[in-house]
Amino acid sequence: MERAKGRLPGDARVRIVRSNELRRRKGYVVATEDVFDPESTVGRILDHTRAFLFGQRIPSDEEQGERVTKVTGLAIFASDNISSSAYATEEMMRALAYAGAAGLALTMPITIAIVLILAIVVTSYLQVVRAYPNGGGSYVVASENLGTLAGLVAAAALLVDYVLTVSVSVAGGVLAISTAFPSWEPAKVAIGVGFIALITIGNLRGIREAGLIFAGPTYFYVLSVAGVLAIGLFRVLTGDIPVPVAPPVAVPVSESLGAFLILRAFSSGSVGLSGTEAVANGVTAFRAPAARNAAVVLMVMGTMFGTLFLAISFLSTRIGIQVDLTETKSVLGLLTQSIVGDGAYFYVVQAATAIILVLAANTSFSGFPRLASILATDRFMPRQFAQRGDRLAFSFGIIVLAIVSALLLAVYQGSVSGLIPLYTIGVFIAFTLSQAGLVRHWLRERGPRWRFSAAVNALGAVVTGIVTLVVAVTKFQLGAWMVLAVMPVMVYLMWRIHHHYRRIEDELLIPRGARVALKAREPRLVVPISRIDKAALHALSLAHGLSKHVTALHISFDEDGAQSFKERWARSVGSEIPIEVIVSPYRALLAPLLSYLDAIDDQDPGRPIVVVLAEFVPRHWWDAALHNQTALRLKLALFTRPNTSVIDVPYHLGDPEDFEAH
Amino acid sequence: MERAKGRLPGDARVRIVRSNELRRRKGYVVATEDVFDPESTVGRILDHTRAFLFGQRIPSDEEQGERVTKVTGLAIFASDNISSSAYATEEMMRALAYAGAAGLALTMPITIAIVLILAIVVTSYLQVVRAYPNGGGSYVVASENLGTLAGLVAAAALLVDYVLTVSVSVAGGVLAISTAFPSWEPAKVAIGVGFIALITIGNLRGIREAGLIFAGPTYFYVLSVAGVLAIGLFRVLTGDIPVPVAPPVAVPVSESLGAFLILRAFSSGSVGLSGTEAVANGVTAFRAPAARNAAVVLMVMGTMFGTLFLAISFLSTRIGIQVDLTETKSVLGLLTQSIVGDGAYFYVVQAATAIILVLAANTSFSGFPRLASILATDRFMPRQFAQRGDRLAFSFGIIVLAIVSALLLAVYQGSVSGLIPLYTIGVFIAFTLSQAGLVRHWLRERGPRWRFSAAVNALGAVVTGIVTLVVAVTKFQLGAWMVLAVMPVMVYLMWRIHHHYRRIEDELLIPRGARVALKAREPRLVVPISRIDKAALHALSLAHGLSKHVTALHISFDEDGAQSFKERWARSVGSEIPIEVIVSPYRALLAPLLSYLDAIDDQDPGRPIVVVLAEFVPRHWWDAALHNQTALRLKLALFTRPNTSVIDVPYHLGDPEDFEAH
Repeated sequence: MERAKGRLPGDARVRIVRSNELRRRKGYVVATEDVFDPESTVGRILDHTRAFLFGQRIPSDEEQGERVTKVTGLAIFASDNISSSAYATEEMMRALAYAGAAGLALTMPITIAIVLILAIVVTSYLQVVRAYPNGGGSYVVASENLGTLAGLVAAAALLVDYVLTVSVSVAGGVLAISTAFPSWEPAKVAIGVGFIALITIGNLRGIREAGLIFAGPTYFYVLSVAGVLAIGLFRVLTGDIPVPVAPPVAVPVSESLGAFLILRAFSSGSVGLSGTEAVANGVTAFRAPAARNAAVVLMVMGTMFGTLFLAISFLSTRIGIQVDLTETKSVLGLLTQSIVGDGAYFYVVQAATAIILVLAANTSFSGFPRLASILATDRFMPRQFAQRGDRLAFSFGIIVLAIVSALLLAVYQGSVSGLIPLYTIGVFIAFTLSQAGLVRHWLRERGPRWRFSAAVNALGAVVTGIVTLVVAVTKFQLGAWMVLAVMPVMVYLMWRIHHHYRRIEDELLIPRGARVALKAREPRLVVPISRIDKAALHALSLAHGLSKHVTALHISFDEDGAQSFKERWARSVGSEIPIEVIVSPYRALLAPLLSYLDAIDDQDPGRPIVVVLAEFVPRHWWDAALHNQTALRLKLALFTRPNTSVIDVPYHLGDPEDFEAH
Repeated sequence: MERAKGRLPGDARVRIVRSNELRRRKGYVVATEDVFDPESTVGRILDHTRAFLFGQRIPSDEEQGERVTKVTGLAIFASDNISSSAYATEEMMRALAYAGAAGLALTMPITIAIVLILAIVVTSYLQVVRAYPNGGGSYVVASENLGTLAGLVAAAALLVDYVLTVSVSVAGGVLAISTAFPSWEPAKVAIGVGFIALITIGNLRGIREAGLIFAGPTYFYVLSVAGVLAIGLFRVLTGDIPVPVAPPVAVPVSESLGAFLILRAFSSGSVGLSGTEAVANGVTAFRAPAARNAAVVLMVMGTMFGTLFLAISFLSTRIGIQVDLTETKSVLGLLTQSIVGDGAYFYVVQAATAIILVLAANTSFSGFPRLASILATDRFMPRQFAQRGDRLAFSFGIIVLAIVSALLLAVYQGSVSGLIPLYTIGVFIAFTLSQAGLVRHWLRERGPRWRFSAAVNALGAVVTGIVTLVVAVTKFQLGAWMVLAVMPVMVYLMWRIHHHYRRIEDELLIPRGARVALKAREPRLVVPISRIDKAALHALSLAHGLSKHVTALHISFDEDGAQSFKERWARSVGSEIPIEVIVSPYRALLAPLLSYLDAIDDQDPGRPIVVVLAEFVPRHWWDAALHNQTALRLKLALFTRPNTSVIDVPYHLGDPEDFEAH
């Protein structure tokens, strides 16, 4: 380093000659990765642990490299949707079975209805991706076309649903495990939280690596289940119809077939539509051409899910699988067992199912932080959500999602049946608002094929609106009311946050391009001193170097103490720095200091006051409790005082002495 | 206020003309009670609440007025000891009853033995008061005569016992209440914690008021029980022996009379010796002549307790009261019922007993904070324990005692029988060490009557030493082991704390009377700026007023941002303050800033660096979460950096603008 000559001493540039950490380039300095090099051993260990868990840091300009291909994108954004094929048929049949054979006969019609709705929703979302190539979640579409309130309602609905997706799918995966190993049952919540922690770490490593981790299981599930279904279809079509394996206890026939029962079955099955939003929300995560790639993934996802769902429903009813009242054996499990027997293949399918259920949570881990970052950029959520971490992931959102969903899992003791009624209502609210928003969009734009697009989205809006009502009514009592109650609160909070940021903005900003002239006044420095020791002299020395207007202040609890302190000051420091001694008979420190500052202020109003605090830095953090928290209390009290700043002058044991004692 | 002319601007005295808060007197300023006047409405409400709960503030020079008379002192320091007469006989008989009539026949002999030991202990403590008129707790006596380690062991033993006294006596009082109202049983812990809170408030009001609150119940208990016993003695001596009221279930005869049983009975009864320490520990709380008054209180207390104890044991065995196995009816209760019937007088005695048991906790509330303050003054405990609060009470110790004893009560679910085995072992360890210490004291001093005094204390040491062993052995398994395990940990911690303070002292202190010359160097100021707004300009303006060596620093995440910031700076602020822009491609703020400071440091080693942080002060504390915690993170990181200070420049909405924009 050497010092360049400038006009003023303060103008002297730091010229970097041999530094690995900072490099001067054109008018500015670039920080290299070396700025992170830890200096202590503990620091190095922590840094290595961080790198091992979360990977090396990634600079911003490598963001393109973090984008995903179609193959990875499908695994990341579709695992939630595809995994629901593992239980959508069963949830539907569980409702219908109470009405006996007449009820179960409706399984295929309802499945076809849901797949049709899925087709409409996917087509609608293809329009979304086309209209919003920079990522068109329901929030963006609704707020741009229907106004901010609609956008916030959609955002709140989706945020709630993302959290629930994590809790439900992890609970589902843990249930699959505890079914196999009943002795692990008491540790259900702990296992679930462990899974959430693993998924969190994977996502903090960045979206691309998260995709690599999760791609295998998604394809593994699709292929293994598709194999079972192909064998089943072949046997059924060739007349070799498998004998159904019976569950431990079949659901008894106890209700007559009514409209409400059918609607409830439909609501339960429509869980298979959730997760569609994720792709449209995540367009920007795809490699170029992003919109096209996202559209392809959306179609492949819809086709995969639709095929699996139809085939499972068809085979289950054709073969005559019964629903297990005890929830020990799943319909998909019984179906697999009926078709391929209970050999190795059966266990492979069960394992794949358990894994994909846990990993379905991953869809939320890309959806939630992304939506939260968009909201934070628009100032509807705290701005921490908009910051990318070391690995370009939205770390704050990931961690918040992990904590909230783990808490929810713990509150519900890991029960799937307790959580599931809260689920899906949010997704359908968001669907409806987003489709309705797009109708407005096409009507306004009137680009090519606008009539067709508007018609598709209008159909989508009507259909998903009806589904929303059906789900809300049939699941209201079971828990959907909680979601409906929490959403207005969230919308209100987001509104307040926005209002707060806006107000602060208005008050803090200076007119753009305005020329500013600083009106600097020389501040008065006050140095509270409790006794004359090295820490105090260190602070006095700094104050003395900064200004000629320094007063030391001592507060004594009695007059004898005041007298002897004055004498000691005169002997040690002399008249170089004037001392003021206050006697505080009520043993208070803060109140007399504040009164003294008021007196100074009255003497010369508007002149800045700087309080210089000597702070002793203990060698270990746990020693901090042994030192008076006086400095902290002073800082807190002075923080709200107008026109008053505080200099913290830390004294470390072994700091060079900036005074001479003789 | 007006400004006096001084030699230097910094020397200008704040001359107080019309201030109610500060008054200049001789060379110093005196803060009046007006410095506490709150300015906001919320502040006034809080202040009134504080004054209502804890009373008006008391200046230090009124400490004499806070001292107590003999009558109040007895109530404060003796309630623990005297209250144990309510259960000492019963605890003894409960052990002996298992051996039937042969066992119970030993009640009176053991009572007499304990009263004799009490006489020895009281006589010993009279010597303590004489030798240590400034307060001679076991800690002081043991550490002065037997060395620091012995002193710390005594201190640890007493601190543990004070905590246990609170838990046990509150649990006992709650038990008395829940016996009367069984439906309150589930709220036992809550009621107990409520009592602790009340006693805490009383003690925070100051020792004298605490005495006034508690004096009534103590004398009320002594008088009402003495009345019952007088009637009982009269009836027994006149041959009108009362018919014993039988308990619900008498303790069955199930053991033979052995040495261990007798020793256990003795241990249980010796609980009546606890609380003797409190008077000797609290000599300084008495009005002058303090030592004499304390001695009188000690003798009166011993006489009162001894009389009650002897009379209860005598009448219980003479009339033939049986011990209740179910712990529903106490021996004292049955005795009262036998002598005066179950009319109003019976209920008066029961009420008095319940109240004194709860208030026995109060003895600890004067003992614990007093001992802790002595230890803190000697640097064996954190120094907060040595500070007197607004009302001259040792507030910190009072609050710590309340929290720890409430936790203990909660952990033991308010069970007396669970807590009682932990009790008394600490007191006897402290007794023994203190007596042994006094023997050394007399042998060394050889003042008038030293032979007699040494003999008394030697007898005391031997007797209490034996009792310590008996209690430790007979109660070890029941819980005394925990106390014996926790004591070495406490001693170790106190030792470490002392070592820490001593080391800091050595390193911080400058030679007494040394003349100091400050070597002030002009610091360099660095102002990190995230964007050009009013808060940033406020900080820049202060820095500019303080020094000519100011550099602004901006950290940008990409080169485009860096370029546009530089242009904006040139347009708005111009060249008045030089700007340095760092590009941080890994989106880190802290690491590049620290590297930059290192570079400055290398340029001019040893020159102080001051980092000026603009901090936006939100109007409400709950808004703080919405603002980036960047400033806090910077401060934490810079706190440990040598030779670096931080100025916090808070910007409040509506602060006067110290710049002109045009």
